Amino acid sequence: MRYAVIGTGAIGGYYGGRLAQSGQEVHFLLHSDYEYVRDHGLRVDSCNGSFHLKQVNAYCHAEDMPQVDVVLVCLKTIRNNKLKELLPPLLKDDTLVLLIQNGIGVEQDVQAMFPQAQLVAGLAFICSSKMGPGFISHQCYGSINLGNYSCRDEQRVKQLRAEMEAAGIRVGEMEYHQARWKKAVWNMPFNGMTVALHTQTDLLLKNPATRQLIRDMMMEVVGAARQLGVKGVDEAFVEKMIKMTDEMTPYSPSMRLDYDYHRKMEIHYIYTRPIEIAREAGFRMPKLEMLEAELRFLSFS
Amino acid sequence: MRYAVIGTGAIGGYYGGRLAQSGQEVHFLLHSDYEYVRDHGLRVDSCNGSFHLKQVNAYCHAEDMPQVDVVLVCLKTIRNNKLKELLPPLLKDDTLVLLIQNGIGVEQDVQAMFPQAQLVAGLAFICSSKMGPGFISHQCYGSINLGNYSCRDEQRVKQLRAEMEAAGIRVGEMEYHQARWKKAVWNMPFNGMTVALHTQTDLLLKNPATRQLIRDMMMEVVGAARQLGVKGVDEAFVEKMIKMTDEMTPYSPSMRLDYDYHRKMEIHYIYTRPIEIAREAGFRMPKLEMLEAELRFLSFS
Repeated sequence: MRYAVIGTGAIGGYYGGRLAQSGQEVHFLLHSDYEYVRDHGLRVDSCNGSFHLKQVNAYCHAEDMPQVDVVLVCLKTIRNNKLKELLPPLLKDDTLVLLIQNGIGVEQDVQAMFPQAQLVAGLAFICSSKMGPGFISHQCYGSINLGNYSCRDEQRVKQLRAEMEAAGIRVGEMEYHQARWKKAVWNMPFNGMTVALHTQTDLLLKNPATRQLIRDMMMEVVGAARQLGVKGVDEAFVEKMIKMTDEMTPYSPSMRLDYDYHRKMEIHYIYTRPIEIAREAGFRMPKLEMLEAELRFLSFS
Repeated sequence: MRYAVIGTGAIGGYYGGRLAQSGQEVHFLLHSDYEYVRDHGLRVDSCNGSFHLKQVNAYCHAEDMPQVDVVLVCLKTIRNNKLKELLPPLLKDDTLVLLIQNGIGVEQDVQAMFPQAQLVAGLAFICSSKMGPGFISHQCYGSINLGNYSCRDEQRVKQLRAEMEAAGIRVGEMEYHQARWKKAVWNMPFNGMTVALHTQTDLLLKNPATRQLIRDMMMEVVGAARQLGVKGVDEAFVEKMIKMTDEMTPYSPSMRLDYDYHRKMEIHYIYTRPIEIAREAGFRMPKLEMLEAELRFLSFS
């Protein structure tokens, strides 16, 4: 299939780069790094094998790009209002739009912009960062879970999965809501708490008070998912996430990096929307509500 | 009456100083400032009229002090374990122990140490700080609410009130539980939140997200008080506290100052105990629980 990547950063550069390296035709939309990548290509230092794509299809305007079979949307969600202009030039009737983005409510909003679009959620479990123009460093993990939101042809999802796997990416498939809410079990506590207390995952789990707080917050996500009828998000999964984080190297999630570099944080989709969705269904998440308020204060000042 | 002050700092220095200046016999227990105060007395710069007591009854050991009619306990609650040694030399059968301290549960614990002691809660509403040895600066407010906990002779409380008023202190009287829980409505949100977000009262109320959070926390205190059958702690009181804080000059509560000066914070009596007491009565305070955990993390690291 022919691919486009919108947002060629830590995530888009990695997954798009892997697909291109495996021989797929990939078209990269870039912004500030356009000229550098056009001239020097894309370099990926990876724990799974580094590589350098000397020549890539680089664009700085979506209108110049061809229509494709699959679009990987790897923007920060705070830029999703740009999709109104960026997506249309790339879309055919059967184009699959893979949203590799954080949070809950993303597909609903993109679907409202493009009612005919065929959307798939991509939940990346990866430690990766952009070190400089056209230079991605992938430290560890790297798998992705696909959750079909509105793709009318399951075979396309299977094909996407097969091509990603052929590119050396570990891919899982999961019911859409389960995929998003499972990701939220980890994301909602750790993204915000590392910002609010200016710390890392390991120290939050080492202190007994914040370890309990992280668990309470995870259980709020479990409670919301249960209220919404989402299967498979339960206390056992909470224990698994805590155990996994105990075993991880100390980690600063994306929101902590955004905060440290004075970039806008993804509060809306990581906190506000899931909290709203749960509240509308009759379930309150008081500790995560408080964390959202603290983050709004920190982003305000 | 004859008075003793345990803990001659911003609070004890002010109220004890006022009583001494009005002609009462006051005995001050000091620690690090003992020699300075013995030699130079006590200076109080006050919005209600400054004064300098050139000679005060200063002590560095409680055993050297006389028995008194009233003890003003003005220690930080984190030092209350010292009361086991500090109080006995001062107590007669009818000594009134006025605990001018923060939080909830203080009287219960002191009573457990001294089952016969006659305790009164003192809720100070004052902006005062120790600027140096023997030098107190009282910026504004200064009233105190008395709540009788276990004084068997109401006349003694009346007499204390009259002598404090004669010393220029505004005194109110209030049912004990109401006094403690009303104070908590302001104390629990603002003490911790100014630490957690490293800010001041005015900025917390200016940001819409934290303004709502402060209100939610105040309503958690109201809910706990209601569950415990405490009268007069209601939504109208919450509105009054918010309005009052809107009109206050930007303020750093005592916990923020403790944190800034790397002193131990009074987490136990300001958070842990009231949260426990409410939980045992079947009421949860999830946002204040979270704040407690954040404070424990910040005091840990």
